[in-house]
Order: sequence, then structure tokens, then C-alpha cells
Amino acid sequence: MTTDVDQLAARIRGGDRRALARAITLVESTRADHRATATELLDRVVDATGTAVRLGISGVPGVGKSTFIEAFGLNLTRRGKRVAVLAVDPTSARTGGAILGDKTRMQELARTPEAFIRPSPTGGTLGGVARRTREAMLLCEAAGFDVVIVETVGVGQAEITVSEMVDLFLLLLLPGAGDDLQGIKKGISEIADVLVVNKADSGQESAAEAAAAAYTDALRIVGADPTVLTCSALEGRGIDAVWAAVRDRRAEMQASGTLDRRRSEQADRWMWAAVEDTLLHDFRTDPAVAERLPAVEAAVREGRMAPGAAARELLAAFRNPARKSA
Amino acid sequence: MTTDVDQLAARIRGGDRRALARAITLVESTRADHRATATELLDRVVDATGTAVRLGISGVPGVGKSTFIEAFGLNLTRRGKRVAVLAVDPTSARTGGAILGDKTRMQELARTPEAFIRPSPTGGTLGGVARRTREAMLLCEAAGFDVVIVETVGVGQAEITVSEMVDLFLLLLLPGAGDDLQGIKKGISEIADVLVVNKADSGQESAAEAAAAAYTDALRIVGADPTVLTCSALEGRGIDAVWAAVRDRRAEMQASGTLDRRRSEQADRWMWAAVEDTLLHDFRTDPAVAERLPAVEAAVREGRMAPGAAARELLAAFRNPARKSA
Repeated sequence: MTTDVDQLAARIRGGDRRALARAITLVESTRADHRATATELLDRVVDATGTAVRLGISGVPGVGKSTFIEAFGLNLTRRGKRVAVLAVDPTSARTGGAILGDKTRMQELARTPEAFIRPSPTGGTLGGVARRTREAMLLCEAAGFDVVIVETVGVGQAEITVSEMVDLFLLLLLPGAGDDLQGIKKGISEIADVLVVNKADSGQESAAEAAAAAYTDALRIVGADPTVLTCSALEGRGIDAVWAAVRDRRAEMQASGTLDRRRSEQADRWMWAAVEDTLLHDFRTDPAVAERLPAVEAAVREGRMAPGAAARELLAAFRNPARKSA
Repeated sequence: MTTDVDQLAARIRGGDRRALARAITLVESTRADHRATATELLDRVVDATGTAVRLGISGVPGVGKSTFIEAFGLNLTRRGKRVAVLAVDPTSARTGGAILGDKTRMQELARTPEAFIRPSPTGGTLGGVARRTREAMLLCEAAGFDVVIVETVGVGQAEITVSEMVDLFLLLLLPGAGDDLQGIKKGISEIADVLVVNKADSGQESAAEAAAAAYTDALRIVGADPTVLTCSALEGRGIDAVWAAVRDRRAEMQASGTLDRRRSEQADRWMWAAVEDTLLHDFRTDPAVAERLPAVEAAVREGRMAPGAAARELLAAFRNPARKSA
């Protein structure tokens, strides 16, 4: 097993795509032995991570996300950059259709040797999907990818989660701000560092510019200050400027020390999230707790029991399972 | 002790202010025996809670928060309502000056028998302050208060925390939207259900109206839909309409089932937060974990160790403290 991990780590560091794909499969597995191997593997490659640009991208359905990521990714590979595209889609467990799973999307980017595309892991909680995506991101970095894009689906909570694993967040929007047609979830536009009004296609430029101006004003009023741009992913216009904006904002973060601080805090939170997940899992699956939990939780939800008293009762059962038979 | 808790619970249910103040002191105490008594007490009164309007109020310094809460509170007591004002100020540990601690604030409301004002508990983390405030809120409800206002300080995270313990959130703003003088933290204005532009004093009405219109537009663009009003707390104008807006929005939440759902989820989260706090406290203070934690956390923050591997190492030490001497 140790040799296997060593070999796999060496192949990933060498940029071997098949090794990378296999390692991500390990990271996504729920089998205990796979988890153990994945943890060991990540620890062997972590020193080769950290230099990539980590970029979250989101936007409501219809905004042209696939077209944008394809145009943006190809723009970067033409500059000699290696680009990985991962996805976080907490709805995939329900719908069965993970984003990026559709083979007709991003066909040209998918065929490019400098690009690596991986659909969202399916199943489990948003927290579980997030963990697996974070670990896949580290593996891609170890394999030498210069830019890791984490795509998500515009459902709200997923964007917050992705913003906690990336350096910058890019939100795609449609022309027509103020039409109430955008369907943007409350709280999403403020986490964006770069806001791009897509579909500024020929003849639509002025509508897109008007939308960009309206967003700039609105976000300033609510306390946010993203870089706001327009582009036409379809016609390939404005893509250079989007990359320049991402690069410039990240350079500012780097110069001010914000990037190092942010990444250090993110890594610390990931560690604590892993600790908490395990502690809570042990708690929930403890027989004495599992036996009492449904009744206690119902009493709390219906206001018959104070939350603090409920917590105390469950914790007492957890610490002293012997009580169960008393 | 049991008799004592029974007596105290009975006096609180009877609306005894001194008993209420004593109970809140118990809730704020960090002594283990006080915590145990407080937990028992809360469980004895929880069935008398739940009917009050729980309202969060925030705004940047200079917005006239004290003047507004005094005018708003007196408006309610004149309608025969009993009003409690609590505070969440996570900065009070640092500055020493808890909000509402200043005796010169809200003098008239403080003297009103139908009102009860309590400063922010000092010290501890935001989570700890939040727990104590939530428990104080339940005690106020058991003592018959019809409206519980939770004031906070406009620092960002505290507003999010308060919004998770109240039915509605009211944000106070100044005339002059778009002046970049508001200092609103990103993400705060979108959590507001009711947004009130204060200082619409004589001669300032049109500036306040312009600000209200600008906020309405900006928030619609970012996906939020609060009720936006103007008032002059100083001159006592517009206060009736603020109460009407709070009442109406809460009635809508009640009719749609949103209120019940929200409170049930809040109570469940409080229970889990209490469980998590204890589990993490036990983990952090475990000798084997405490010994390794500084070095492991530093390695994670500096990118020398993968977060998952770090979590695994600490969890192994926690579960098998014997390893420590191995």
C-alpha cells in the first residue's frame, strides 16, 4: 500500500493525467481504506500545491456558463497555462445529472491536452461534496495545473461554500439587470470579486454595458466592490480582459498579504471541518445518542424542550452509554 | 437547588423583573453549577416562550440606533406592549464597553416599567455571546415580554448570528446612499427584512426618500426584497409605520408557515451548536490533542501538512491517548 501511494504520488507530481483521475476517484470514495489511502496521498503531495490560481465561477442557468468556461479555458491554454475544471453541485444527488457530466459541454476544452475536466462528485451532503472537491483541487495543483476553476450551480449555499475554497469568485450575469429575470440568490453577488455580464453579443453591447453599470452602482450601495466587466463568450470578445481582471485582483491580494492569510485560514478551517465532521458522526452514530435523538430533536423543534437541555441530555447519553440500560 | 429553580421559574413566569435579571445573570455565568441550573431553569420555562416578536436591529455607528430604539420601544409600550432590549456585541470583550451598558442611553425607555433593558454579555467568543443572548431572549419571553429586540453593532458577523436567532431583521441607514459613507458591511443589507432610513428629520425628508429609493433598487438587483421606509426617530415621525411593517411582514411569515419552520430550524441549530461546542471543547482540551495541536495547526496553516491528514492525526490522538507516550 505504501509503495502504491508513493508511486501514485510520484506519477501525479509528474503530471500524469490517468494517475490524477485515479487519485480523484480515491478521494471521492466513501470506503474507509480508500479514505485512508487518499489522506496519505494528499499529505505526500501537499508541498507541491499552492501556486495555482483557484477561481470559483457561478451563474444562473441560461447565463452561458459552459460557453464561458470553454472560451475562458481555451484562452488560458493558448497562453500556455494548464487548466483544471472541477464542479460542486449539491443537487446532483437528487437529479442524477452532475454538472460537467454532460459530454456535449465544453467539447473543445475537453479535447485539449492542457485541460482537465472533472464532473461534480455525486451524492452526500454539500459538506461532503465540498471536501472531495477541495481535495481534488489539491491533487490538480500537485499535477501542475496553473489555474483550477471550481464551477457551481447558482443555488446559493454552494456558492458560499465554493467561495471558502478559492482565491477569487467570478459571477456570470445576463444583460437586463433590474428586469428581475436574473434569479440571483440573495447574498451571492456580494461574494463576487469579478462580475462578468456575459452575452454582450453583437447588437447587445449597450444592454450589457447598462447592466454592468447598474450592478456596479447596486453593489457599491450594499458595500461590495467587485471588478465589473462585459464579454461575449459566444463571439470570444472580452475574454482577455476577464483573465486580466482575475490576475490583477489576485496580484493585489498577493501583494497585500491577503492571499496568504486567506489560504492559511481556509486550510485551518478545512482541518477543523474534518475534525467536526468526524466528532459529529461519532456522536450521531453512538447507539445511546441514536436511540434518543429522534424524540429529543422533535421536542426541540416543537418548542417543548429547550435546546440547551436537549444538548445536555444527548451529551450525557454519549459520555455514559451505561445509562441507557439504567 | 430544585426548589430554588422551581421558585425562580415561577417568579419569571409571573413577570418578576428581579427574578428575570437574576436568571439572565445565571445564563451569563461560566461556572459549571450555574450552567447546570440555568439549563434546568430554561427547560422549566420553555413552554411559556414562543409568542413574542423577535426582532434584530442593527446599523452603523452614528445612525441614531439608541434614539431609534428608544422612540420605537416607547411607541410599543404606549400600545400596551412589554418590550425587552438585549444586545449582542462581540467587541465588548476587547473594548470593555458593552453596548447598552452606557446608562445615558435610552433613559426614558429604561425608566418605563413595561420595558427591560440588558447590556450585551461581555467576554467570550461570538458563539458564546450568542448562546447567552438566545437564552436571555427565552427568559424574557417566559416573563411575558411581547417584543424582544436584539441590538447589534454593525460589524458584520454579529448581524448574521443575530439574524439566526430572530424572526426579522431591521437595518437602520442614513440618508446619503451612494455616498460611500455608510460603511455597511458586505452581506448585511441583504439579510434585512425591514430597512429604515433614519434621520429623515425636518428638511432632510427628500434626501432620505432618495436614499430609500436607491436602496430599494440596489437590493432588488442583488436579489433581496425588504420593506424600505424612512423615519425621524429624533422627531418621532414614521415610527408607527416601522412597527406596522414589522407586524405585517411577521404576519405574512406566520400565515405562510415560514415563521414556524424558521423557528423550528433555529431551535434545532441551537441544539446542535451546543452539542458541537461541547464536543469541540472536549477535543481541544484533551491532553493528547492539546499537546499536538500547536505544531499540527501551524503545519496546516503553512501548507506543509494536508488538512485531512492533520485532522486524522489529531483524531487518532484523541481516541487513543495512550499513543502519546508511545
